Amino acid sequence: MRKFPGPIRDLVAALTKLPSVGPKTALRYAYAVLRLSPEERAQFAQAILNLRLITYCARCFTHSEKELCEICANTERDQSLLCVVAHPRDVATIEATGVYQGLYLVLGGVLNPLEGQTPDTLRMRELAERIQKPEVKEMILGFSPDVNGETTMLYLTRNLKPASKKITRLARGLPMGADIEYADEVTLSDALAGRREA
Amino acid sequence: MRKFPGPIRDLVAALTKLPSVGPKTALRYAYAVLRLSPEERAQFAQAILNLRLITYCARCFTHSEKELCEICANTERDQSLLCVVAHPRDVATIEATGVYQGLYLVLGGVLNPLEGQTPDTLRMRELAERIQKPEVKEMILGFSPDVNGETTMLYLTRNLKPASKKITRLARGLPMGADIEYADEVTLSDALAGRREA
Repeated sequence: MRKFPGPIRDLVAALTKLPSVGPKTALRYAYAVLRLSPEERAQFAQAILNLRLITYCARCFTHSEKELCEICANTERDQSLLCVVAHPRDVATIEATGVYQGLYLVLGGVLNPLEGQTPDTLRMRELAERIQKPEVKEMILGFSPDVNGETTMLYLTRNLKPASKKITRLARGLPMGADIEYADEVTLSDALAGRREA
Repeated sequence: MRKFPGPIRDLVAALTKLPSVGPKTALRYAYAVLRLSPEERAQFAQAILNLRLITYCARCFTHSEKELCEICANTERDQSLLCVVAHPRDVATIEATGVYQGLYLVLGGVLNPLEGQTPDTLRMRELAERIQKPEVKEMILGFSPDVNGETTMLYLTRNLKPASKKITRLARGLPMGADIEYADEVTLSDALAGRREA
């Protein structure tokens, strides 16, 4: 690696911070970036810097450029449905199916005591407040069906179920151990349509 | 994709210009960049912009930050050996082995008339001048043994061989870890012909 010019070495170092990108892939990417036009490279760099414009929606805590995200700001969405997810990217993944018209709340992760994720580090308080709102009739647990996701859903079902509110979970389509982030849209649509009471 | 905040969409668009990166991988990368610290993101963006500092070595035409690359500027390298390669990255690949101590010349590609690569678009003239230099005793053809690489090596051997200079090519044989059962006949024939004492 020491034989490469400094700028290529620096870019390779930055690229290896991406998930499952090793030095060889990073080098291939770096040469691809080198083949881009100066304008394209400037756009690329600017796109990275512009990520600082992203903040969190004050109501659902997903990524947003404004105080309220587009979904929360849309009064035509079904205010009676609240889908709880772990990460902002899960909101985007579910939105991509186009079948869900309710609202969201991003918990900020799943329960995982080994990695320091306890009820206190997640947005449990915000969720508890939100589900008390009279317009919310159903809480959908939109978590990956893996160990930590299941634990989180069990915890939420036991601790947050208010009287006269329904709690459902994504059911059909997601195989055990799958990651919600990589689910195809058809599978995810099935899972939404076939949700059942937790 | 339209459901993602603009800055994420822009970065995904830039990332999909990388080789074999589709929208899903680009999205995963974009969220990874979003998880970096603002300082790391600034470094990443700067690394991309700094690629403009890279130019071509005036002597061997590999990537360099100075007029002469480190290899050409190093007078301790063996001036009698000249390895001709297609791309600047091939220089880095051969340097990584640490066994070659000679110099290089980057041809700028391989002959491929269908894609517009003819002797005129490559650095044939520069190579012809270089090989006339009295200190150069041997030209090593460092091309991939595929159709275009073989064509280029045949062309160079026929057209550029000066009297009293040696032209060699990289040995063909079984790669490390290969299974003899699956080796193609040409490779195996070459491996037999090029056998050496164990």
